[in-house]
Amino acid sequence: MNSNRLEQGLQKLHEIDGEAGQAVINSLQHISPDLARLTIEFPFADVYSRPGLDLRAREIATVAALTALGHCAPQLKVHLNAALNVGCSEEEIKEVIIQMAVYAGFPASLNAMFAFAEVLERRAD
Amino acid sequence: MNSNRLEQGLQKLHEIDGEAGQAVINSLQHISPDLARLTIEFPFADVYSRPGLDLRAREIATVAALTALGHCAPQLKVHLNAALNVGCSEEEIKEVIIQMAVYAGFPASLNAMFAFAEVLERRAD
Amino acid sequence: MNSNRLEQGLQKLHEIDGEAGQAVINSLQHISPDLARLTIEFPFADVYSRPGLDLRAREIATVAALTALGHCAPQLKVHLNAALNVGCSEEEIKEVIIQMAVYAGFPASLNAMFAFAEVLERRAD
Amino acid sequence: MNSNRLEQGLQKLHEIDGEAGQAVINSLQHISPDLARLTIEFPFADVYSRPGLDLRAREIATVAALTALGHCAPQLKVHLNAALNVGCSEEEIKEVIIQMAVYAGFPASLNAMFAFAEVLERRAD
Amino acid sequence: MNSNRLEQGLQKLHEIDGEAGQAVINSLQHISPDLARLTIEFPFADVYSRPGLDLRAREIATVAALTALGHCAPQLKVHLNAALNVGCSEEEIKEVIIQMAVYAGFPASLNAMFAFAEVLERRAD
Amino acid sequence: MNSNRLEQGLQKLHEIDGEAGQAVINSLQHISPDLARLTIEFPFADVYSRPGLDLRAREIATVAALTALGHCAPQLKVHLNAALNVGCSEEEIKEVIIQMAVYAGFPASLNAMFAFAEVLERRAD
Repeated sequence: MNSNRLEQGLQKLHEIDGEAGQAVINSLQHISPDLARLTIEFPFADVYSRPGLDLRAREIATVAALTALGHCAPQLKVHLNAALNVGCSEEEIKEVIIQMAVYAGFPASLNAMFAFAEVLERRAD
Repeated sequence: MNSNRLEQGLQKLHEIDGEAGQAVINSLQHISPDLARLTIEFPFADVYSRPGLDLRAREIATVAALTALGHCAPQLKVHLNAALNVGCSEEEIKEVIIQMAVYAGFPASLNAMFAFAEVLERRAD
Repeated sequence: MNSNRLEQGLQKLHEIDGEAGQAVINSLQHISPDLARLTIEFPFADVYSRPGLDLRAREIATVAALTALGHCAPQLKVHLNAALNVGCSEEEIKEVIIQMAVYAGFPASLNAMFAFAEVLERRAD
Repeated sequence: MNSNRLEQGLQKLHEIDGEAGQAVINSLQHISPDLARLTIEFPFADVYSRPGLDLRAREIATVAALTALGHCAPQLKVHLNAALNVGCSEEEIKEVIIQMAVYAGFPASLNAMFAFAEVLERRAD
Repeated sequence: MNSNRLEQGLQKLHEIDGEAGQAVINSLQHISPDLARLTIEFPFADVYSRPGLDLRAREIATVAALTALGHCAPQLKVHLNAALNVGCSEEEIKEVIIQMAVYAGFPASLNAMFAFAEVLERRAD
Repeated sequence: MNSNRLEQGLQKLHEIDGEAGQAVINSLQHISPDLARLTIEFPFADVYSRPGLDLRAREIATVAALTALGHCAPQLKVHLNAALNVGCSEEEIKEVIIQMAVYAGFPASLNAMFAFAEVLERRAD
């Protein structure tokens, strides 16, 4: 049932992104509750809940992709936090960002690294 | 010394990509031996040789990025092979590709999955 | 229930893409039946089945997006067919492709127009 | 004659974008009056003035493309306004943005939806 | 007058791209003579005919951009030919392609270099 | 030796980007001194130091690529400054930006032109 997908997605979202993920969903409620629901259901209930890849590997893949795409800084910051939440070390995340210089160029890596600096500062507060 | 970077890079390239990586380098020798050398040195000696992230995680990041970027099918195939070479399971790689539907859209995921089908067929021969 | 989403998605897929859409799904069955199912469920049951935008407008949006992204020729061809299937005229589709020269540049428009020429030829057979 | 293209373009720009379009052109006058003129002539006199596709469909295509490309928030906001100006409903525009999650991923859709929230707020003032 | 833009554009197209450019235009005539005309007028009469940047610099800029975008191999090959036509040396073009590894990653550079190898082979025939 | 690459890269960085380049490197020192070092070594010692293309042509290529990619405004501003530093005229740089409307669309050109206006204002202070 749909309500199950929503519940399952919310639980997975909370497990991965903590309050940052919920904040994104909340900020969508006013403008498009439907997109908020779809953003919980497909990514978190249908994809992140699948077996076959642990959450650390999933967040490494997402940080890599968002760094390479280059045009989604807010989502990258959410997933840099998420990567730390699910057990990636700071050093591992920096390595993923550095490696993206090979595939998406230095500007993509530099911008992601500056985003990570911001994320780490906020967590330190 | 530069010769050390080149040797170190070649060794890492062989460890990761096996003959497929060497084939890319060979195909560059005629048109641009300099780009061949740089493609060994920076990615493989400077980046992939770094500690702090194991090769499985590095290949998961690269498969994710190349799937998301969408415009580099030949390199994606090399790294789908590489991911298998360094110990990722077929299932894990498929999960990374599926997850990219969330961040780069379904066409990017579909094309990467078809590329993986091709890679698996060739390995089965 | 999930089985309902799958059935609803398949019906919508058939309505929009006819046999071309089914062919994409079939070609995925061997390598990843899960991605095949997700490609039916989220895009076709969750998104294309929504009220609020008619199918003509949906296909105009998709042709525009795939032309602009530039890296997904196979999916563009499916949706050029779909646009004709749901009632867009040849002239309207050409206008959308021409307009993309403004936002994504002439190479993106040229490649999409050549893809449309191919689609029209196959339909004429 | 060139002066006719310019006049025709300015008229079409005004019809579509109202003051927001003129504001973009004005902000270019100091740095590059030539790019200002070309931005009126090719997009608005040569493309948007063409018959064969109504302005609603043209704005749906543009909102879709700019959402998918992801790197042009200022232009997206101009065209979200333009889409409302030429008769698209809020609901239709939200549907186009939601549909882009299928082709360009959720981050592209989320950022476009937040841009639309901003546009609607300013129009409400 | 429009006929002047068309004539001016055709002359500039011939000067830059020789027969390769004309071949692209010809291949568009059947599917969209309007896009063929627009592809001559805006790029070649309005942009490439402008003073202020010599044709060598213009082709260096275009080769760089098409290498970086990564999704327009046919147009890249036309402009690799064009760059040679207007006086860029093989070495200079290879340097531009190599430099793009910094900004768009190695896959983009490798694919452009392989395209250049093809272009050089055809010119040698 | 590595120390030589670093010194050579720093010298070239200073020659091209002046203080702006050094500022980027400095801002990386806290979060990732390794990425700072790699950003000096590969781009500036391995690529920009190569013979075969003068610095003016190199900066024209980089401004073109960063304008076309669209997602790296901070790096584009550094290289708009660099292009002026190595002898490109304001007019030439504006021409490169205008030309990108052909290959990457008007939004990419407009955003780059606005970035250039900012760069020129700061230099005038």
